[in-house]
Amino acid sequence: MTTTRQAGTRARILTAAVEVIAAHGVSGATTKRIAASAGCSEALIYKHFTGKEELFLAVILEVMPGLAHALDRLRSDLDERPLAEALTAFAESAVEFYRQAAPIASGLLTDPALLGAFRAMLAVRQAGPHIPIAVLAGILRAQQAAGRIRADADCDGAAALLMGACYQRADHSLLVELPTEPASFAGSAVSALLTGLSA
Amino acid sequence: MTTTRQAGTRARILTAAVEVIAAHGVSGATTKRIAASAGCSEALIYKHFTGKEELFLAVILEVMPGLAHALDRLRSDLDERPLAEALTAFAESAVEFYRQAAPIASGLLTDPALLGAFRAMLAVRQAGPHIPIAVLAGILRAQQAAGRIRADADCDGAAALLMGACYQRADHSLLVELPTEPASFAGSAVSALLTGLSA
Repeated sequence: MTTTRQAGTRARILTAAVEVIAAHGVSGATTKRIAASAGCSEALIYKHFTGKEELFLAVILEVMPGLAHALDRLRSDLDERPLAEALTAFAESAVEFYRQAAPIASGLLTDPALLGAFRAMLAVRQAGPHIPIAVLAGILRAQQAAGRIRADADCDGAAALLMGACYQRADHSLLVELPTEPASFAGSAVSALLTGLSA
Repeated sequence: MTTTRQAGTRARILTAAVEVIAAHGVSGATTKRIAASAGCSEALIYKHFTGKEELFLAVILEVMPGLAHALDRLRSDLDERPLAEALTAFAESAVEFYRQAAPIASGLLTDPALLGAFRAMLAVRQAGPHIPIAVLAGILRAQQAAGRIRADADCDGAAALLMGACYQRADHSLLVELPTEPASFAGSAVSALLTGLSA
């Protein structure tokens, strides 16, 4: 009973955090504002989260449409669809994820104190934004073992290329009106990734 | 004479802006602080720049070790070195550029008002962070025309992949202690880009 209520409060705080970050940015997302929006005390926030960093990490990991989910779908897609199709669908999801994550990620990079605390927390947990790239590389290596990706391809490099392109595309789409559609971006990036440049 | 002095003031303001951004982040980089650091009045800042957005754009374009410069070097490198070597050297420079640009880019994405003004300015000037990708694609297409890149490769996609990987790598390096060295990252990404995945 208590546990259910606690889980409810935690979820309410997370939802409030998302709303406050959207309205005021990370730097303006004070625990005071989040508490007001969640209808709870600031003290209650600190009962559920050790600090703003942990709250933001929970927002990234638990609330936003997950990159982990997109990676799961890629894994099952690959059983049924051609490599190019599955990777293109994944790239579109990844761009969407990074678009939603951008305000928080940027907020962390902008605030030296918060960045320091976040770095320390990620180091202890061995977590971080580079983990999904390693997961994608693992998925590619499984395809390689099955003979669907050429044996001499660098799967770590390929994962960094595809994920990085999606990440940058997301940020750019927030800054400028890009000349290409998201689907055409994804198709073009995956085509380049599959073909390679070597003459 | 006056022009020289004006240019000197402009440069002093830009240098002060870089220092203040490094110390206080974009959100804390007020014209008041920048003026104090440059030893001039706030009014003088507004004589040289229409606003904070234009000042930040000038910092990105004029002060930081340029991405444009790295692209120029890639162009000349390609006359003398193998494709893989030239692209790897470029990737290392691009990561370094994006590392230095990150606090400003993030600051823009975090501040809704500043982001709006910056978007409007970029739209009018037809400038933006996506332009270097188009320049890289053009460089790759010239190599393709010369037969050094396979004829069916998607050069726009390839440029987005390489630049995006460098951009994300730079941001991640600010958030976590990455398990790979910069040179190994660049080599791995370029290897994947050249080989391609298609079995």
